[in-house]
Amino acid sequence: MISIVIVSHSAKLAEGVRDLAYEMADDSVKIAAAGGLDDDTIGTNAERIYSALTDVYTEDGVLVLVDLGSAVMSTEMAIEMLPEHQQANVLISNAPLVEGAVVSGVEALSGKTLQKVNEAAEKAREMTKVRR
Amino acid sequence: MISIVIVSHSAKLAEGVRDLAYEMADDSVKIAAAGGLDDDTIGTNAERIYSALTDVYTEDGVLVLVDLGSAVMSTEMAIEMLPEHQQANVLISNAPLVEGAVVSGVEALSGKTLQKVNEAAEKAREMTKVRR
Repeated sequence: MISIVIVSHSAKLAEGVRDLAYEMADDSVKIAAAGGLDDDTIGTNAERIYSALTDVYTEDGVLVLVDLGSAVMSTEMAIEMLPEHQQANVLISNAPLVEGAVVSGVEALSGKTLQKVNEAAEKAREMTKVRR
Repeated sequence: MISIVIVSHSAKLAEGVRDLAYEMADDSVKIAAAGGLDDDTIGTNAERIYSALTDVYTEDGVLVLVDLGSAVMSTEMAIEMLPEHQQANVLISNAPLVEGAVVSGVEALSGKTLQKVNEAAEKAREMTKVRR
């Protein structure tokens, strides 16, 4: 089963997304939150992301959901800190953070591959929330 | 200037999104967070959302960004608690929560109308975070 890492500029946001994804999935999916800076301000920190990646790493793969901007760069730096054979098993998703995380949790639980979970997460961008 | 309300099943998530949106915009935009239930568990609460709506209400309009599922229903209930002439000035967005909130904060600051801010927020679903 794949694992999930939530990267955000805000620690609260990352933890909240993890909590929500766990509400829809269950504890058998490993989901780690990596948000904010060490002084509790807004930003992303490659070491914090690296630590989340190593906490939940599995050969089945790790899908990383990000908020925006430098979250991608920090995640790429974190992935480069991993042993080379692990790096190919980590994928940064283009999915919207909250919607993609909820879908990923459910799809991971069903045993889908990393690519398939990511496809489902990225489709969450087409989600219609309210009909007019 | 329009105001923004962030509705999520998680209080942490809603507050984190508000913090992130404020980082990109500034305090002249009113942004309220309405997340979670009174006992701090996961869920949405129409009265909490109503309270957020009245906190930031302006005749220029209020854009509500939601996470998923019952967040929409609870928001619709909250809107119905408002005086009738205010209800038409509140719009629930189909935008992805985090990405849409950040865009909305910036667009609100530039003085755009409710409809225009919402259009920009909904376009955030097309955001490419990482190039492959």
